[in-house]
Amino acid sequence: MRTKCTGRSSVLFNNPPRLICGSTIVGDVEAQGPLGSCFDITLEDDTWGEDTWEKAERKMFEHAVRKALDKAGLTPMGIDILLGGDLLNQIISANFAARELEMPFLGLYGACSTMAESILIGSMLIDGGYANRIACAATSHFSTAERQYRLPLEMGAQSTPTSQRTVTGAGCSILADSACGDNGQFSSIYVAGGVIGRVVDLGITDASNMGAAMAPAAADTLKKHLFDTGRTVADYDYIVTGDLGRFGSELFAMLLADSGIDIGNRHLDCGNIIFYSKQNVDCGGSGCGCSAVTLNGYLLPRMEAGDFNRILFMATGALMSPTAGLQGDSIPGIAHGVIIERRKN
Amino acid sequence: MRTKCTGRSSVLFNNPPRLICGSTIVGDVEAQGPLGSCFDITLEDDTWGEDTWEKAERKMFEHAVRKALDKAGLTPMGIDILLGGDLLNQIISANFAARELEMPFLGLYGACSTMAESILIGSMLIDGGYANRIACAATSHFSTAERQYRLPLEMGAQSTPTSQRTVTGAGCSILADSACGDNGQFSSIYVAGGVIGRVVDLGITDASNMGAAMAPAAADTLKKHLFDTGRTVADYDYIVTGDLGRFGSELFAMLLADSGIDIGNRHLDCGNIIFYSKQNVDCGGSGCGCSAVTLNGYLLPRMEAGDFNRILFMATGALMSPTAGLQGDSIPGIAHGVIIERRKN
Repeated sequence: MRTKCTGRSSVLFNNPPRLICGSTIVGDVEAQGPLGSCFDITLEDDTWGEDTWEKAERKMFEHAVRKALDKAGLTPMGIDILLGGDLLNQIISANFAARELEMPFLGLYGACSTMAESILIGSMLIDGGYANRIACAATSHFSTAERQYRLPLEMGAQSTPTSQRTVTGAGCSILADSACGDNGQFSSIYVAGGVIGRVVDLGITDASNMGAAMAPAAADTLKKHLFDTGRTVADYDYIVTGDLGRFGSELFAMLLADSGIDIGNRHLDCGNIIFYSKQNVDCGGSGCGCSAVTLNGYLLPRMEAGDFNRILFMATGALMSPTAGLQGDSIPGIAHGVIIERRKN
Repeated sequence: MRTKCTGRSSVLFNNPPRLICGSTIVGDVEAQGPLGSCFDITLEDDTWGEDTWEKAERKMFEHAVRKALDKAGLTPMGIDILLGGDLLNQIISANFAARELEMPFLGLYGACSTMAESILIGSMLIDGGYANRIACAATSHFSTAERQYRLPLEMGAQSTPTSQRTVTGAGCSILADSACGDNGQFSSIYVAGGVIGRVVDLGITDASNMGAAMAPAAADTLKKHLFDTGRTVADYDYIVTGDLGRFGSELFAMLLADSGIDIGNRHLDCGNIIFYSKQNVDCGGSGCGCSAVTLNGYLLPRMEAGDFNRILFMATGALMSPTAGLQGDSIPGIAHGVIIERRKN
């Protein structure tokens, strides 16, 4: 239960919680992407039998949690706290799913940083001794996000070259106190620490250029974490960002280079690897489902298989608001990070 | 740093964090209410010199935090984590304020339960050893809430008898590890534990009847807490709810009576005490600012003065969404609780 605070924003756990399971649900476009075979459930129709996209999205959140419970051999009663959120106003996907799941629920809003925010808080609550098992989940949906943040799909508006496609996807990770001795899907994955991000704003005002809005926050959080811990980029197999996309990733590397940090080939962006470029997704994927399904469906299984041993998973959020935009505001960003390690048992 | 988990939803701290300061900012209507003299800053004009109400609301959030820092003799650098949220889509008040404050920030969405949610998570993070000092804040604004959730004020629509007036107000509590030995405004106030609520829904669909939507969640959380801890209502001087209002409070008492719990005269609702009934506020006050300013401006100073020694502060949130409402959904509620105690040093 003991923990070491290292500086102002980063924490390292002495007794890291285990990440025992990860579940994923994706839409049809994601299923046709390069990671298509990695996901647990793929939808043929993004309404999933519901009469609205919003109802489909909440169903994805709920069933991502249920799928993760199945993998862990747990029932909802086995989870002490559900932590999560989504991109919709009043996080209705998470709230309505939490109603069905009947678990004690702490709602978060971190835009696309939600998967990292939930794992970060969840790990602290387990390491701190407040819970044995916590479910962390996030979801996003292309059609609900377009309707809420940009233009109704029915308009058929053309996307700009800097735009990214919101991933239709939900992911859930189950964290457990290692003393629980759970079996689960992963035997050797631990959350070793994390870093809490700040809201950073370089003045981007284009709702179709999310990558540029988030890159400064990602760079800020990484720099803070390296400073706090005395580590270098080389201490991680990969620095994984959530959804900077192609353009945002370039900006991220440039901002780091300005501070004398060479990210080299250690940067991996979930938004860059979830779609083929021939899928017509402009700068890549985005949305909190993007990092949620890439982490749980692709990265964690690869770590469990021994392909790499330590990543800094930094989901990135564009704190965009149509109301604030209409009032002339820019789009601030935030990025939270969690250190995920494979440890030999 | 040691902590005791008592059951599935409640926690009791062995080394409770101190609540060292509380700050408040309110609008003109709140300033004319019965608690008017309790608040730190009262606005003469609810735009506070800004060109939109939304910008005024974020300014309130930011300055509530700055005021609390002043009282504690701290700078923003003295705070390890800022926790908070508001009622606006994408919690823009909190996000934009966090940008100005430059603190590591974890965004929450719990609707009107935000003040309790932030203190609950903040206390666990301090007790767990992840931070020395945390600022917890929440804000709401009558005019932004009406515009977003109901009807534009310019329409001049008449309110229904069950409606409540969203409080224009922001509050911030500073939590500190008791080992820090801070002076601050309060010398003897501690967060002794808490309870995490579930999303509960009895099918209310009227956006002007928030009290009824939240009462079932408040009753559920209180019952769970009493069950978890083996306590009775008599173990608390007051069970304080956030904003059930007159009608919701009656329903709360009835739901508890159905479970054999007599709340008697130990129930206090922030929404019932913040306005005079002659102020034409129908069923009372609401909004996350309602419980935030009542706690920080009125309840905590009275506790410090020795008027009472232990409360369960249960802010209540109506997880209402215009989008979900248009799609035929009901309004679920949630309530989180924190045990606040006065302890002789």
